[in-house]
Amino acid sequence: MAGKVRAGVVGATGYGGIELVRLLHGHPHVKLSAVSSMSFYGEDISKIYPSLRAGIDLTLEKDPAELMDRCDVVFAALPHGLSQELAKDCVDKNIIFIDLGADFRLENEDEYRDWYGETFLDKDLHKKAVYGLSEVFREQIKKARLIANPGCYPTSVALALYPALKEGMIDTQEIIIDSKSGVTGSGRSMTQSTHFPECNEGFSAYKAGGHRHTPEIEQALSWFAGEKINVTFTPHLLPVNRGILSTIYCRLENTPEALRRCYAETYANEIFVTVLQDGEYANIRNVRLSNSCHISLHFDMRAGRLIICSAIDNMVKGAAGQAIQNMNIALGLPEGAGLSAIAPAF
Amino acid sequence: MAGKVRAGVVGATGYGGIELVRLLHGHPHVKLSAVSSMSFYGEDISKIYPSLRAGIDLTLEKDPAELMDRCDVVFAALPHGLSQELAKDCVDKNIIFIDLGADFRLENEDEYRDWYGETFLDKDLHKKAVYGLSEVFREQIKKARLIANPGCYPTSVALALYPALKEGMIDTQEIIIDSKSGVTGSGRSMTQSTHFPECNEGFSAYKAGGHRHTPEIEQALSWFAGEKINVTFTPHLLPVNRGILSTIYCRLENTPEALRRCYAETYANEIFVTVLQDGEYANIRNVRLSNSCHISLHFDMRAGRLIICSAIDNMVKGAAGQAIQNMNIALGLPEGAGLSAIAPAF
Amino acid sequence: MAGKVRAGVVGATGYGGIELVRLLHGHPHVKLSAVSSMSFYGEDISKIYPSLRAGIDLTLEKDPAELMDRCDVVFAALPHGLSQELAKDCVDKNIIFIDLGADFRLENEDEYRDWYGETFLDKDLHKKAVYGLSEVFREQIKKARLIANPGCYPTSVALALYPALKEGMIDTQEIIIDSKSGVTGSGRSMTQSTHFPECNEGFSAYKAGGHRHTPEIEQALSWFAGEKINVTFTPHLLPVNRGILSTIYCRLENTPEALRRCYAETYANEIFVTVLQDGEYANIRNVRLSNSCHISLHFDMRAGRLIICSAIDNMVKGAAGQAIQNMNIALGLPEGAGLSAIAPAF
Amino acid sequence: MAGKVRAGVVGATGYGGIELVRLLHGHPHVKLSAVSSMSFYGEDISKIYPSLRAGIDLTLEKDPAELMDRCDVVFAALPHGLSQELAKDCVDKNIIFIDLGADFRLENEDEYRDWYGETFLDKDLHKKAVYGLSEVFREQIKKARLIANPGCYPTSVALALYPALKEGMIDTQEIIIDSKSGVTGSGRSMTQSTHFPECNEGFSAYKAGGHRHTPEIEQALSWFAGEKINVTFTPHLLPVNRGILSTIYCRLENTPEALRRCYAETYANEIFVTVLQDGEYANIRNVRLSNSCHISLHFDMRAGRLIICSAIDNMVKGAAGQAIQNMNIALGLPEGAGLSAIAPAF
Repeated sequence: MAGKVRAGVVGATGYGGIELVRLLHGHPHVKLSAVSSMSFYGEDISKIYPSLRAGIDLTLEKDPAELMDRCDVVFAALPHGLSQELAKDCVDKNIIFIDLGADFRLENEDEYRDWYGETFLDKDLHKKAVYGLSEVFREQIKKARLIANPGCYPTSVALALYPALKEGMIDTQEIIIDSKSGVTGSGRSMTQSTHFPECNEGFSAYKAGGHRHTPEIEQALSWFAGEKINVTFTPHLLPVNRGILSTIYCRLENTPEALRRCYAETYANEIFVTVLQDGEYANIRNVRLSNSCHISLHFDMRAGRLIICSAIDNMVKGAAGQAIQNMNIALGLPEGAGLSAIAPAF
Repeated sequence: MAGKVRAGVVGATGYGGIELVRLLHGHPHVKLSAVSSMSFYGEDISKIYPSLRAGIDLTLEKDPAELMDRCDVVFAALPHGLSQELAKDCVDKNIIFIDLGADFRLENEDEYRDWYGETFLDKDLHKKAVYGLSEVFREQIKKARLIANPGCYPTSVALALYPALKEGMIDTQEIIIDSKSGVTGSGRSMTQSTHFPECNEGFSAYKAGGHRHTPEIEQALSWFAGEKINVTFTPHLLPVNRGILSTIYCRLENTPEALRRCYAETYANEIFVTVLQDGEYANIRNVRLSNSCHISLHFDMRAGRLIICSAIDNMVKGAAGQAIQNMNIALGLPEGAGLSAIAPAF
Repeated sequence: MAGKVRAGVVGATGYGGIELVRLLHGHPHVKLSAVSSMSFYGEDISKIYPSLRAGIDLTLEKDPAELMDRCDVVFAALPHGLSQELAKDCVDKNIIFIDLGADFRLENEDEYRDWYGETFLDKDLHKKAVYGLSEVFREQIKKARLIANPGCYPTSVALALYPALKEGMIDTQEIIIDSKSGVTGSGRSMTQSTHFPECNEGFSAYKAGGHRHTPEIEQALSWFAGEKINVTFTPHLLPVNRGILSTIYCRLENTPEALRRCYAETYANEIFVTVLQDGEYANIRNVRLSNSCHISLHFDMRAGRLIICSAIDNMVKGAAGQAIQNMNIALGLPEGAGLSAIAPAF
Repeated sequence: MAGKVRAGVVGATGYGGIELVRLLHGHPHVKLSAVSSMSFYGEDISKIYPSLRAGIDLTLEKDPAELMDRCDVVFAALPHGLSQELAKDCVDKNIIFIDLGADFRLENEDEYRDWYGETFLDKDLHKKAVYGLSEVFREQIKKARLIANPGCYPTSVALALYPALKEGMIDTQEIIIDSKSGVTGSGRSMTQSTHFPECNEGFSAYKAGGHRHTPEIEQALSWFAGEKINVTFTPHLLPVNRGILSTIYCRLENTPEALRRCYAETYANEIFVTVLQDGEYANIRNVRLSNSCHISLHFDMRAGRLIICSAIDNMVKGAAGQAIQNMNIALGLPEGAGLSAIAPAF
């Protein structure tokens, strides 16, 4: 085991946490060295998730501050508001800290307060945080020690719009995002709307125009375009376990051919982003359990609109997978290490 | 049985047809007197659908032209292109003909040819057809003998936009419709994309900007607004059996309060359209197996947009249920007769 | 409304309760006059279940004892242990009491104590209770004022074995029951195992050899056979909303032809029990949302065994539907009144 | 790539084939060198399965006989009857042939003819075939060049009964097997019963007492017990994509403690078989996408029966995964190579 990166997962029994555990377990350069959980500390993690029975033998710890000394990288999968102190400790000890929560995603404290009701504990610490959208901010991530892993919806949207916005090929004032997420996006906590009989065979929007990922989406798109962008964003709850499909509507300011070329070139060398061919549609089933993002472009020439479909696995590219990709980049490992699984066909 | 309306269903073993059979069976003023099927004629219908075993004892006939003489109303649930001749015969014999297919929905023959590749057999016959969006065209339906039952997507969209358009409360040039339909919308024919393992846990758009329901949607919206309207319409395949949710984006040209009032007033006396309260979301599970349409209004004031969610059961209000509602109107029966079932909670 | 039976539902917001509300709403001879809920009293019932919005306008009451005076029949859908006092009050006032819970199902107090940990409050009251397996105990139900509605699993099993046991056509000492139930069988209370992502795409047994419905099943089978019968009973949780399929294994002591004849004759005049034809299989989808029980017989001649498949909707024939059937019988109404809905094809 | 095992997959676009492709792609010691398909030859395999887009770049070939020369191991995932000639060619050329179909599973030609309607082309070839139930026949597999990979149901059943039968701890004359399989078990061919709306929310048995896996199950159990065993076997179609749960009923001839000890000891050193703890239940969700088999033991002491629940992923341990495990054994690779993925928690 000598030479392996020692990784710890804080909040290991939530959905983001357990997905990190699963993926890190299969990473060829990583030793999963510690896991913690406020709800289940003292238990074997395989008692909570019997799927781990054969492969993983770790006891859940209580105090994240204690496990960090046995780690080179700490991943935090905590409810928002709980990562800031831990992040500071890690950064101080030169341990890479990758936060799957929202605490370090927004650079503007006012927006963080407006949407999350919290403040920045240490403004300097926030300045050190790098937004971990791997394909776009790779150079910054290479040097980062504090990485704010993007939200699931923002990942699906930002990758879909990055090529068009950086090249100025769409109207920035008319972007409408209709997203649909599998139920794991709501986490492990039980609610009536995720109780099987009330979720199965149902479908609806929620938090239309008011979801907390809105400012994060707008921040990313504004960076790409170099101007302030507002969007309309409506998430929906899809009765499947995994996957996000974002259908994005823009006013077209260029030809379909130019758009196709722009997307093909932007992502030509990316192993985790596939621009589908004309006539194909991004489908969550083709990215499930993989770190891939599938993007398809469609043109409504009657109305002069571009329709972009973007599919990711919300728990992989939208959370744990991208976090590991970021770790790989920050540590100089092959970017795809531990993430080579392709989506099962069914 | 004396005094009951005698109804026949042509194309009874397709999904639209069998749903008509189910609903007509429970209609207090109707006797289901004949059913036909090109695929299964000669068989008992309960052999094809064992759920009918206890209740319905009818043999499938081959020739629709023969059964019409035993009917006061004929419902046709056929692939497009097959209804026109049958409709003519019925109208000639003063039998009410309700077509669940697309043959009589578009008044412009050019559009019909462009999108369906067929022509009008008899232009005069098409002039007699009434578009059966019950809540909007009730007066015309009362006198109709040839009713073009609306498509499933168009029903969900037209009911959602009718109040705002007739009162001129939204920008007519910027309407985007993102619809999601359960798999029964694709019918009984088997395809790889509706084979269980390739549909379950998947989700994608299809025919973005090019679905045949687009001209029908635009025709209805244009009627409401009194001007030509073009929309962007993207359907998606949802891995559930029943239900359509349309999420519609418009540029707001009025206050939320005025919009809410307009919707409440328009549908105040409608038994099948419910405008939900502030904070509630239309969900397909709350309309399943019922003839209801649930509409919820949401306001993205940051972007100046109205978001309308509209949920129907694609097989009931989107097909067989609305067809029966139209029959009730045309015959002077209580409009809700045979359609009083409420959605099961699960 | 004059002349209608006034029905009340106690525990109306649980899954059994809300299904009673849905079915009673469509009953031609019933007026749903009162509903109560310990969790949501004071609220409109349509606030809890938006599917009721268009059709039902009732406020949830707190105290069941108060509503009974406005009822001719009271249905109780309560956790076990809570019905006994209420039942006594109703019986004293000559109000028909139909209990969907377990309090009055077992005639042996020791068994009730062993399996449920409760005692009989009033032994005389228990003697008055009739076990409401409608097809078998119809004559007793006609005169009953206190009806113990059977459990969902016991209904599926008892109807499947009644013909063979009453005629002595199988070995009574070797009956194995492998049952699978949809998730509504677990009720509205949230648990981790019914949280959508942990239930969907999963399947397992639970309480093998130790489920509380075991003594109820054995009691019914023993009555039929006229001797004490023990069974092995294993329930499983099926990731669908509704339906129970019981697969029952018995040692055959007769010919297939004799068995088929026995089943056909026993149920020849029953409107809610269908014995399927040779080669057909009972499927929960063919009984969903209906009060039907489908039974199919299969013969493993190599091993000398009869395999019986029995499908019901756990919430209808297995709960609310059979309760209404029992009310109809007790009141002398047509037995199928309010229960004529056939299963939708999908 | 030098030094890697060159593997070919014949019938690569069926469900068994594509699962082989997915798993072999992630195998550290294997180079997937050729794929063939009778239906789609000439196409890129990633055109048929877009999930492979990012990772696999292979064109489907037509003639299996041509690709074998570029392979050290050939896996065949073909309908029964099509493997025998190909197997002979491979064996003649000293290429390892692993057949996922049924052609070489039964040693008795009469049974093969009775159940499959085919004959043995070359009786000597059949004598060379080893039944690839890895945990039981490991020593034979080490030397095998022709491996008959077990069926999915037989794998789940044989692993569940092997410990008890080899130690004589249950009555061999009374074994009842109630199995439930996800829909991928039916393959990629479309049927009405696997069309999404007719499969979703449904559940039924099929081929009760007459499924082709019956003689294969009996052959394995008879080998274990050293005497001829007949079973009753009933498969069911479960509306999930993956997984088999077999619930097995036996008459107990020993104490629960002895049984538990026997199972624990038998599988103590197996990496792919986990005997769950008292009170836990085997669940298909805990083995999905992994090569694991979970076994749980339950005791119905009232009836003197042992109930065994056994869960596998029908496409992995029940097909492609066990095939790779067998290849590993035959080639002297680490038995778990390429199979270390643990089941995702959701």
